[in-house]
Amino acid sequence: MLQSQLFGKTRKEAPSDEVAKNAKLLIRAGYIDKLQAGVYTYLPLGFRVLKKIEAIIREEMDAAGGQEILMPSLHPKDNWETTGRWDSMDDLYKVQDSSGRENALGPTHEEVVVPLAKQFVFSYKDLPLALYQIQNKFRMELRAKSGILRGREFIMKDLYSFHRDEADLAAYYEKMKGVYKRVFERMGIGAVTHLTFASGGSFAKYSHEFQTVTPAGEDTIHVCTKCGIAINQEVVADQKACPECGSDELTQEKAIEVGNIFELKTKYSAPFNLTYKDEEGKDQPVIMGCYGIGLGRLMGTIVEVLADEKGIVWPEEVSPFQVHLIDLSGKNEELKKEVQDVYEKLSAAGVAVLFDDRDLRAGEKFADADLLGISMRAVVSEKSLAAGGVEVKYRAEQEGKIVSKEEFFKLFVR
Amino acid sequence: MLQSQLFGKTRKEAPSDEVAKNAKLLIRAGYIDKLQAGVYTYLPLGFRVLKKIEAIIREEMDAAGGQEILMPSLHPKDNWETTGRWDSMDDLYKVQDSSGRENALGPTHEEVVVPLAKQFVFSYKDLPLALYQIQNKFRMELRAKSGILRGREFIMKDLYSFHRDEADLAAYYEKMKGVYKRVFERMGIGAVTHLTFASGGSFAKYSHEFQTVTPAGEDTIHVCTKCGIAINQEVVADQKACPECGSDELTQEKAIEVGNIFELKTKYSAPFNLTYKDEEGKDQPVIMGCYGIGLGRLMGTIVEVLADEKGIVWPEEVSPFQVHLIDLSGKNEELKKEVQDVYEKLSAAGVAVLFDDRDLRAGEKFADADLLGISMRAVVSEKSLAAGGVEVKYRAEQEGKIVSKEEFFKLFVR
Repeated sequence: MLQSQLFGKTRKEAPSDEVAKNAKLLIRAGYIDKLQAGVYTYLPLGFRVLKKIEAIIREEMDAAGGQEILMPSLHPKDNWETTGRWDSMDDLYKVQDSSGRENALGPTHEEVVVPLAKQFVFSYKDLPLALYQIQNKFRMELRAKSGILRGREFIMKDLYSFHRDEADLAAYYEKMKGVYKRVFERMGIGAVTHLTFASGGSFAKYSHEFQTVTPAGEDTIHVCTKCGIAINQEVVADQKACPECGSDELTQEKAIEVGNIFELKTKYSAPFNLTYKDEEGKDQPVIMGCYGIGLGRLMGTIVEVLADEKGIVWPEEVSPFQVHLIDLSGKNEELKKEVQDVYEKLSAAGVAVLFDDRDLRAGEKFADADLLGISMRAVVSEKSLAAGGVEVKYRAEQEGKIVSKEEFFKLFVR
Repeated sequence: MLQSQLFGKTRKEAPSDEVAKNAKLLIRAGYIDKLQAGVYTYLPLGFRVLKKIEAIIREEMDAAGGQEILMPSLHPKDNWETTGRWDSMDDLYKVQDSSGRENALGPTHEEVVVPLAKQFVFSYKDLPLALYQIQNKFRMELRAKSGILRGREFIMKDLYSFHRDEADLAAYYEKMKGVYKRVFERMGIGAVTHLTFASGGSFAKYSHEFQTVTPAGEDTIHVCTKCGIAINQEVVADQKACPECGSDELTQEKAIEVGNIFELKTKYSAPFNLTYKDEEGKDQPVIMGCYGIGLGRLMGTIVEVLADEKGIVWPEEVSPFQVHLIDLSGKNEELKKEVQDVYEKLSAAGVAVLFDDRDLRAGEKFADADLLGISMRAVVSEKSLAAGGVEVKYRAEQEGKIVSKEEFFKLFVR
């Protein structure tokens, strides 16, 4: 992709109404645009990152036996009255059509997925079952000032699991802890993301959050210095020791909840009377779990955690392009041909390249490259050619290095 | 994928409240589920078809220079008041939050994409520009009885093009006619889909619809028997001859509008004052076009057009799986191993296989395979092995044929 044709330009200043670092950087770099508080458009660069995040999550959910579906946003009022949440959920958007029918705009999908499962789950042979979707959610947030960390409209992966008994749920729940850990590791925030014990509500002793430590966090967690497990504010009010290893050495941190997993048990299957017949033909309640990750929130968190004073730093797996190729040839036509040739060879090999072909000074191009944060930057210049080839610099590292053209192309062979 | 584990079972009968063939078949075959009138969930099979359709459209839009973005559904009232459509559009869902702020649920995105373009388009150098998204739309349809042909919530591809003058728009518009033609050809409905002249509103003489002939169509078109171009009801009221070749031999047909393209010119750029500076530094209005395709509608149309009395018939490019492998081994353990081996080899080669491992009679399995409509069915049975290998039958053809195992695996090499 030619940068001169990319929709979304870099800006020197962030809009004055944005306070969150993630929004400031993502807007300045041309990844997102704010339509109104808590409601953003993903521009081409941001959309590419979102698709990368989505692909990782999809891969991991499929590997965990999840079957992908797509549920709607317009939910009949009846379904929400069945669970009592039509009245109890404060941040539920409600919309009425001209015939007076009322709908909720889905902020979560238990009210849809349980009646759906009821149509196809009859016997113990139909269990276990795991359904997920990656879909737009709506929540009437009154304070939407955290950029894409907390939106009024946002994309979530929500998976719902259905089991014959609590033991089967428990085994799947444990497995999902590992799946989530891997997702956050692949996003480059594994080291600062802690499995966090949270209150389980009325059904389970605990639920679990995945909390990423950063000053931008709206939550407070207490991290065990021995085992790395954390507990949230609610839990720390009741107990002062780590529920995993028993240590009482906890350090308080600000953190962002990037995911959560919850043993719902019969909380939603009971009101919809979702049951199955066991081997003896006896009706048994279906036991459920749910597992959420916010994709935009995750993208914002990666920015908050990894950005430096020069701009965004994407880990390789979510970088919008594999390489940011900078043309510094200026009026040197021979060199321009050489750089162009590198761009064409990479493109022909299927490498996702952003090619900075803009008519700007080197300093401006490098500053934009740092702001955009593509994981690898490559320069073919008189200097690099004199030194033996291509200057490669990883965004997360301080120093670049010269590699031969041959070695350079080999970097992209998978 | 093992069919025994696939979420979504086939049904003998369609729900009594569905009248449309597409909904009846897609529900019976386990592709979709109705949440309420005009609002459907895509089950795993339906989701796979949707993704195939999405991939084809994305490929063609990218090839046409489109840059993909993702705009939100919650649109500020202000934007819709600027164009006058807050009051004039009858089927607009309106939603209010607790602080009294009003939003439209986007049924189309001119009100968002034009102010967005205004932030980045300043000069003739920023044009032309083509932005698109594949995103959920909302329309308060009062008669939602056509299955997924006409939803209250539905997924659309909407592309918006921005030009410096009408000539540049006209050239892009012509190009998009070809792009759309190719999309519908790849979906297997090219032969019955006609470029149709429609009223252009106040700005252009004509707009164009792509209308697919089928008895399920809610529109009436008049197809020129000479050149294959059609005109819609509005246009035929004013003129009786084909606007393309002048012939007056037109045949009346029922049709579904699967896509439309529209020269907006300054209809939406004017109210938002979207201008650019030309070479002389003079402000000029940006000239626009828009180009839509409904993905669910397209999926429903393919079902309406291609299904036969036994069930759905997917063209290869949108089939949810590449092959439907049927296990008829029953209690023959040796044969079972052989079929299992074929399944594993295909899976290992990355072929998308639905493997009917269910404990059912051959007749039931074949009936379900016909209902599901996967483009190729394969059977490894005593009979097929005796005849030399695997029985392959394409859903769109009447007769199967025996191929050797070696030839069979070669069918999937790309």
